[in-house]
Amino acid sequence: MQFDLIALDADDTLWQNEIYYRRGRDAFNALMAKYGFPDPDKVRLHEIEISNLEFYGYGAVGFAISIAEAAVELTSGEIEAADLLKLLAISKDIISAEVEIYDGVEETLRALADYHPLMLITKGDRNHQESKITRSGLKGYFEQIEIVPEKSPDTYQGILEMYDILPERFIMVGNAMKSDILPVLEIGGNAVYIHNDLTWAHEHTVQHELPEERFFEIDSISDLPDLIRQLEVENPT
Amino acid sequence: MQFDLIALDADDTLWQNEIYYRRGRDAFNALMAKYGFPDPDKVRLHEIEISNLEFYGYGAVGFAISIAEAAVELTSGEIEAADLLKLLAISKDIISAEVEIYDGVEETLRALADYHPLMLITKGDRNHQESKITRSGLKGYFEQIEIVPEKSPDTYQGILEMYDILPERFIMVGNAMKSDILPVLEIGGNAVYIHNDLTWAHEHTVQHELPEERFFEIDSISDLPDLIRQLEVENPT
Repeated sequence: MQFDLIALDADDTLWQNEIYYRRGRDAFNALMAKYGFPDPDKVRLHEIEISNLEFYGYGAVGFAISIAEAAVELTSGEIEAADLLKLLAISKDIISAEVEIYDGVEETLRALADYHPLMLITKGDRNHQESKITRSGLKGYFEQIEIVPEKSPDTYQGILEMYDILPERFIMVGNAMKSDILPVLEIGGNAVYIHNDLTWAHEHTVQHELPEERFFEIDSISDLPDLIRQLEVENPT
Repeated sequence: MQFDLIALDADDTLWQNEIYYRRGRDAFNALMAKYGFPDPDKVRLHEIEISNLEFYGYGAVGFAISIAEAAVELTSGEIEAADLLKLLAISKDIISAEVEIYDGVEETLRALADYHPLMLITKGDRNHQESKITRSGLKGYFEQIEIVPEKSPDTYQGILEMYDILPERFIMVGNAMKSDILPVLEIGGNAVYIHNDLTWAHEHTVQHELPEERFFEIDSISDLPDLIRQLEVENPT
């Protein structure tokens, strides 16, 4: 195999992201416990989050407004306004959180960029994503950066067409089956799944049949250069 | 004068925008009156909005969270959670509002596009802006669409460099002195100010000395094709 383009996801692939949302959910749970609801229904919260995607897209704002709505619903409107504002302010914490890059990321990008053009493909709020990319100091490793509202097969197809890349010469790397792996496999591309314990529930999917000749798994992003080398050098087709 | 590129602002230039925020402020005022505060301090609300720009940028979300914060502050936390949620939900109304295009816009774009490449330059939340552009049905008139976080001189400079356009051959059209006119004049470009009674307070600025050979005013977008023709045909330099 030979790759004309290696694309990487950003949130929870290059840097911490889901952990801030977990802290937000913990704060929500603690507050609800204070109001006498020690175990808020996770499924209901998830439903509210999904219903808010149409307005706010993926990101901190939709999350904060969702936990605020869930809190009003759960407490039948008894929650105090000041507490509700605290839930909303979690969005500010998430948006202004430092970018905590995972170990090994910069070395990996440097090693990959020597032999391949790299692209960052991330979804979510454009301003927040751009801010994180800039603050990460990693921008220089990427020839292109694509911030998309949704990572669907059509999204990837559109990107490959825009840059005139064949799917079989494209490989996407990320931590989310639903966003980074399945849609890429669906359009005939290659995908590397990095295991990450902190992956948002929404990104978990039912087990799929995966084409083993185009789907690869690694435990850490540091394993990526070796994998790419193996695929290109030891398995040239 | 000859123009290689005509750029237009979107919100309150091509379609209604500020009116939805006015309705939001009216709803906020009505709710505050219910709580015994019939005349909320506009200056304070504006301060809160400005302080939230760093987190949310321009748009419906920052506005809704700002009026929610102002309401908690004004009522010293006495506002009911359900009412606070209503203020937040104003963001959903704004985001899902129909795109109401001004009279004459489509004819104007059609007339201009016959002789010039057109660009849309708009600021605000990317998803919301893209959604409005798509729903407007006007996308086809524009060769380029730039959604920027802030309309500063640097922003315009960057766009002109990207498309290799000289400032003196660029003209920007919009309703906001602060965003559409002054920064363009500052970098040596031309600007057309369309008078619009509904322009957000934040966009009003103190009177500037304007270079009259590069600054033009019209009362309606329908006057634009004639103005451009006059400048190019009757005043060729």
